[in-house]
Amino acid sequence: MNDAENRHDPDTLTAVSETAVLQRLFPRLPAADGALIGPGDDAAVLAAPDGRFVVTTDMMIHGPDFRLAWSSPFELGWKAAATNLSDVAAMGAAPTALVVAIAAPGDTEVTTFEGIADGLREACLALAPGCGVVGGDLSVSSTMTIAVTAFGDLGGRRPVLRSGARPGDVVAHAGALGEAAAGLALLFADAVDADGEPDAGRAAAARIRHPRLIEAQLRPRPPIAAGTLAADAGATAMLDVSDGLAFDAARIARASGVGIDLDAQALGIDVERALGGGEDHGLLATFPPDAELPAVFRVIGRVTAGAGTLFVDGVEHTPVGWDPYAGWDGVAG
Amino acid sequence: MNDAENRHDPDTLTAVSETAVLQRLFPRLPAADGALIGPGDDAAVLAAPDGRFVVTTDMMIHGPDFRLAWSSPFELGWKAAATNLSDVAAMGAAPTALVVAIAAPGDTEVTTFEGIADGLREACLALAPGCGVVGGDLSVSSTMTIAVTAFGDLGGRRPVLRSGARPGDVVAHAGALGEAAAGLALLFADAVDADGEPDAGRAAAARIRHPRLIEAQLRPRPPIAAGTLAADAGATAMLDVSDGLAFDAARIARASGVGIDLDAQALGIDVERALGGGEDHGLLATFPPDAELPAVFRVIGRVTAGAGTLFVDGVEHTPVGWDPYAGWDGVAG
Repeated sequence: MNDAENRHDPDTLTAVSETAVLQRLFPRLPAADGALIGPGDDAAVLAAPDGRFVVTTDMMIHGPDFRLAWSSPFELGWKAAATNLSDVAAMGAAPTALVVAIAAPGDTEVTTFEGIADGLREACLALAPGCGVVGGDLSVSSTMTIAVTAFGDLGGRRPVLRSGARPGDVVAHAGALGEAAAGLALLFADAVDADGEPDAGRAAAARIRHPRLIEAQLRPRPPIAAGTLAADAGATAMLDVSDGLAFDAARIARASGVGIDLDAQALGIDVERALGGGEDHGLLATFPPDAELPAVFRVIGRVTAGAGTLFVDGVEHTPVGWDPYAGWDGVAG
Repeated sequence: MNDAENRHDPDTLTAVSETAVLQRLFPRLPAADGALIGPGDDAAVLAAPDGRFVVTTDMMIHGPDFRLAWSSPFELGWKAAATNLSDVAAMGAAPTALVVAIAAPGDTEVTTFEGIADGLREACLALAPGCGVVGGDLSVSSTMTIAVTAFGDLGGRRPVLRSGARPGDVVAHAGALGEAAAGLALLFADAVDADGEPDAGRAAAARIRHPRLIEAQLRPRPPIAAGTLAADAGATAMLDVSDGLAFDAARIARASGVGIDLDAQALGIDVERALGGGEDHGLLATFPPDAELPAVFRVIGRVTAGAGTLFVDGVEHTPVGWDPYAGWDGVAG
């Protein structure tokens, strides 16, 4: 490295104090409308006007959950927020706040954390306005890890569980089906090097060819507002489709002790991908037959008798879990 | 490996499905009195009778925060709970619940997760009865990581911030001072191999010689109940001493715009260790001069004028942050 390059060495996590890094991140993070005490003390204090709050946590790990050669820091922050917001929405709640713990190798540039903060902010603004980041933690780790805990307000609603579906209910879905999986398949096919490892240059080229599907994978836009709409419309059961429609529909069937019969014709052109592809984070809900469905939901099946069984067009279907990175080494790329 | 050994191969994270691992962990986890909907759905629902809740998050990473050669899984779970409960207590709140995300290498035995669950449970029972685990996440990562988010109930109290200390207040502390640091120094001195890497056999021997100090490091017992007692007694500022008394006292001084003068004689025999040693997770609080201090607090100084300055026996003192594992490779041991 010559002198000119040396002079532009970026700040890294270990070169800059944690306090200084946080001072660069705080202004980028979205404020939460419900924050009574925000970041900076031992803990935050959040309003819970309903006398209850919804809470969910999910961790994204470099390797099994994302690749730095494929995702920008902005997209990591966005996706970490979006997937957690979606779990809050699936209870019939409106997201209010996040806390975010990030660990990364010591030589990670501070600009990477700034990008993650920007993604967290823009996802909150776009998907759940008023929801903000009220606290967090920053650590050094050899494996980049983003742990988000998200909170929501039920606003007096009964939480919508997985266990409330009843025979005769309609099954409906809001959001994308199979697009995130299609995007990931494109990345696996076109954005790897000769050894099969993720490659940033090829990913950039693949994005130009397939911007919509790759963005569906790296920067999903789950229909967060559909959660409270579904609850208000009387949804009897609901969940966030993270592991594929078939696998998650079977979860409702088991939890509710019912059968679920999906209508293949309602699942688009690529039925297999719609059934098996995970990470779209749409909402799958059941409604009483006379319910007036929110416009964002499409009917894709019905609830039948049949303790815990999933059917497609009346034929029993065995769902397979979504584990696209299984077998990868979890380090390279 | 012979056949007899093969038959006893342990279950590992990748050999057993996530659902099956969770089924083994759920019965070990403590229930939260305030859980309206516990683990198993997209999110949990917690009571917040006060109309507000306290939230804090903290991540423990293998390498910078713990060593598997030194800590048992039980102790990891215990410490992950204790350190987060302490941040809740430092706001003047009673802990109500935790959510816990754990990531570990795929070849980690399920019994390791069971041990972590046992530690989480016993720490809640011992330090904050009624507090339980209401949700979590389990992932594969090359670096073992435990991310805890903890919640608390203020019960109508005003949260005690770092910024409320006023000249004339007394400075008081509840809990251990320097014991966790003394325990870690013993481990660094006696529980490493010839290459300086953590060694489980030597750690076991060191524990027999110094059980109290090593336990103070690996299984701290912060005075969680002291948090609400301090708030009720009128504490004007409070925090959890995680980075050393001097460093954390300076935080109150800066946040409050006051001076803090510590009395060396009140800090025990090893004043340097009491000032610099982190991870005891005691509570440092300031009280009005006429306050009746809870019995668990000992007066160790006073608040003076002097914007943000720390003094010891009237002499300005420059605190140094606690970073005992800095420079270690974060992988071995």
